[in-house]
Amino acid sequence: MPRAGRRPGGGATAGLGARDSTRAHVAAHARRFVGELAELLRYPSVSSSPAGHPAMQACARWLASHLGRLGAADARVVSTAGHPAIVGRIGRDPALRTVLIYGHYDVQPVEPLSAWQTAPFAPVVRAGYLYGRGASDDKGPLFAHLKAIEVLRALRGALPVNVVFLIDGEEEIGSPHLPALIARLSRYLAADVAVLSDNAVLAPDRPSLTYALRGDLYLELEVAAPVGDLHSGKFGGAAPNALRVMVSALSRLHHADGTVAVPGFERDVEQISARERRYMREVGPSDGALRRETGSLSPVGGGRYSAYERTTIRPALEVAGVTGGYAGPGVKGVIPSRAAAKLDVRLVPHQRPERVHRQIFEHLRRFVPPGLRLRTRERMRATPVIIPRHHPAARAAARAYRRGFGAEPVFVRSGGSIPIVSTFATLLGLPSVLMGFSLPGDRAHAPNERFSLAMFSKGIVTSAAFLEEMARS
Amino acid sequence: MPRAGRRPGGGATAGLGARDSTRAHVAAHARRFVGELAELLRYPSVSSSPAGHPAMQACARWLASHLGRLGAADARVVSTAGHPAIVGRIGRDPALRTVLIYGHYDVQPVEPLSAWQTAPFAPVVRAGYLYGRGASDDKGPLFAHLKAIEVLRALRGALPVNVVFLIDGEEEIGSPHLPALIARLSRYLAADVAVLSDNAVLAPDRPSLTYALRGDLYLELEVAAPVGDLHSGKFGGAAPNALRVMVSALSRLHHADGTVAVPGFERDVEQISARERRYMREVGPSDGALRRETGSLSPVGGGRYSAYERTTIRPALEVAGVTGGYAGPGVKGVIPSRAAAKLDVRLVPHQRPERVHRQIFEHLRRFVPPGLRLRTRERMRATPVIIPRHHPAARAAARAYRRGFGAEPVFVRSGGSIPIVSTFATLLGLPSVLMGFSLPGDRAHAPNERFSLAMFSKGIVTSAAFLEEMARS
Repeated sequence: MPRAGRRPGGGATAGLGARDSTRAHVAAHARRFVGELAELLRYPSVSSSPAGHPAMQACARWLASHLGRLGAADARVVSTAGHPAIVGRIGRDPALRTVLIYGHYDVQPVEPLSAWQTAPFAPVVRAGYLYGRGASDDKGPLFAHLKAIEVLRALRGALPVNVVFLIDGEEEIGSPHLPALIARLSRYLAADVAVLSDNAVLAPDRPSLTYALRGDLYLELEVAAPVGDLHSGKFGGAAPNALRVMVSALSRLHHADGTVAVPGFERDVEQISARERRYMREVGPSDGALRRETGSLSPVGGGRYSAYERTTIRPALEVAGVTGGYAGPGVKGVIPSRAAAKLDVRLVPHQRPERVHRQIFEHLRRFVPPGLRLRTRERMRATPVIIPRHHPAARAAARAYRRGFGAEPVFVRSGGSIPIVSTFATLLGLPSVLMGFSLPGDRAHAPNERFSLAMFSKGIVTSAAFLEEMARS
Repeated sequence: MPRAGRRPGGGATAGLGARDSTRAHVAAHARRFVGELAELLRYPSVSSSPAGHPAMQACARWLASHLGRLGAADARVVSTAGHPAIVGRIGRDPALRTVLIYGHYDVQPVEPLSAWQTAPFAPVVRAGYLYGRGASDDKGPLFAHLKAIEVLRALRGALPVNVVFLIDGEEEIGSPHLPALIARLSRYLAADVAVLSDNAVLAPDRPSLTYALRGDLYLELEVAAPVGDLHSGKFGGAAPNALRVMVSALSRLHHADGTVAVPGFERDVEQISARERRYMREVGPSDGALRRETGSLSPVGGGRYSAYERTTIRPALEVAGVTGGYAGPGVKGVIPSRAAAKLDVRLVPHQRPERVHRQIFEHLRRFVPPGLRLRTRERMRATPVIIPRHHPAARAAARAYRRGFGAEPVFVRSGGSIPIVSTFATLLGLPSVLMGFSLPGDRAHAPNERFSLAMFSKGIVTSAAFLEEMARS
């Protein structure tokens, strides 16, 4: 296959031409593409549901069939000990580069359901956005890659690279079974680079490449008293209240200035250079921009770090859930004998999840009086990762963004965690390109999640350009 | 009607004779009585369910019909704006005293259901106890009064007093509609004394008369952030977490020694005399006895008060429920935008509920940062009450206990709240006798609630004796 970009002087012109025809093709088929994506969004593929959930199976089958139509003749649903994954390949030409396209079809739970303006699994288009759970995290961006393949094949007949697909059904619950699957299929999945779009750009005209991710440690806590719930009239003031103990212990996780109060928690946190922080200040979102998204900001650490820094180069410990006592309507006079909490700890290099877990347990234990029992349980773990900014694949991605968005991408850090990225590096020796197509206001994990239709189109053009640029790299 | 007790020298003998025949009659019919009580326990009459709940209606009809069979020809279900009440009368002889028998057929919610060894509304007898929600609070003790009427009429043909019944369907939710009903029916309900059995004795051989009740203020709190739940990866460390703010504010309700930290909360607390505390020490439960019930005790206030004192002459502020964030299985990376809590505040003379509500709100507000909103809502209110120990009706009750239990009753304080007692005093000018038949280990409000069959029989004999003693008083 001729590599157009390698002809002297031909690259820019060929690229522009290809971009224009790609864009025209996307525009001509946009209505159908959105309709197909809406089909995909209808599956309530919430991965915190039990394994074997029919919606997960059905969604996986739909995707395998769609990959087949795109040209991946061997596309199939692969069983795991949990929810199934989907794999497939197009092309096995050893003269071509191979790109692994990773995405996930599972979505976050939809609670609180009452906060949704339209039903989470009945996608609707409103004012240029497609609304529905999974629209931007991650079905929409994943589908942009799939449509890029369709467009390239329609325009060129063949792809400029080999493509292998890996579509996860358990990303939102920490991909517990994916590492084993990747190890088992490592030859099948062999590639030069992985591309993922499970993250946001800064703005529609500000494409960005994510080069750092925070790690994640998700803990469940329980405080339990020796006997059952007690009558708060009879015993109020004398009997231990497991919920009050939990509340009191949780309140000791942070200092008054909002920084984490767990002894040793800060010890392994990497100090970031002044130069790096300057670069972040230049390209990253301002406090004002983040405040517009969140409604308000908490000035953690007395303002020593910007909000962007607090969500990327600084760790965070969020209380993600508390339950205990009576939660029904009206009154119940009860001294709760049991309370539970969920902690979501976002880690930065060089914090180690197992050490942080131990530190938190030891710290909380000090605030649990004798007679009550504290238990912690790890539900998810991901180590923080950094992706080389100057890797050839990252540069190919930057060129693709220029073609797809008409703007120079910036390199940004993300506060989120994508455990698969470190799995790719460890098990397949693969660098990962995090090529976001969603926007900061898309409400991933929250009610009224959405995906911009304009970004969907740009994503398709950019993904197609990336495959072409990878062919030239 | 002859008043046997007033014949010189005849009281004791007549009393003993009456007691013996009553006891024999109760023993002869015990099996049927327990079966009837089990029928009553089968109704899932949880009053925190919405008004109009079929189980409440059916339970009320069953009771009205049963009162009719006891001789209250006019017994009927009375509608309220909430759950219905039941009223009925036996006798209108102006020469006789009139006793108002109050009880309630509504019960507490059963959560956590998994902690029940047998289904809460499928009563079973096991090792001398009848198990089921409402067994001891309050269907069992109420039913002992009803069976006392049956026994007296069977043995004597007529009752020694007039009796009026008032059976509440909303006691567990603060009897919101009962004061209006009592005001409306004040002529019908006119009596010399009210008797209630919604409390426990100290032990099977230690009958007790409750002369003090704590008040109750039940508050719902909410902390809300301006926008919806946020992704804890993207924003963790910068965006406000309503749940963490709630936890932090709740943790400020108490000092490290467990006493209430709300400014002004202690100001109106009555100082109890050394003589009263000595009496309480002599007759009240020891710390060891209370510890056996609760599994462990929290040493609130550094040991300045016994556990009995902490649950009676001292106020208590219990966190009765907290909800916020993700409560489902597995992980959800979320910064909660909303958190709710329920506070159960037990008050002592001369604390005023409305002032305490204001103090708590003002205190908590200090720990809610700008940008988040705190709201409180009062769900229940009862003022603390003291019942004269030397009132003739209290002395009649003491004699009835001697006859029913063969033991001298002690006068005790209760940590619970019975709002109806202050309503009776205010609206009907009625003193109340709190004549408990349940035991401290009966698990009122908790899973595996039960009622001792021996206490059921003693309760019937004691109630019958009380009506006779009231006739003589």
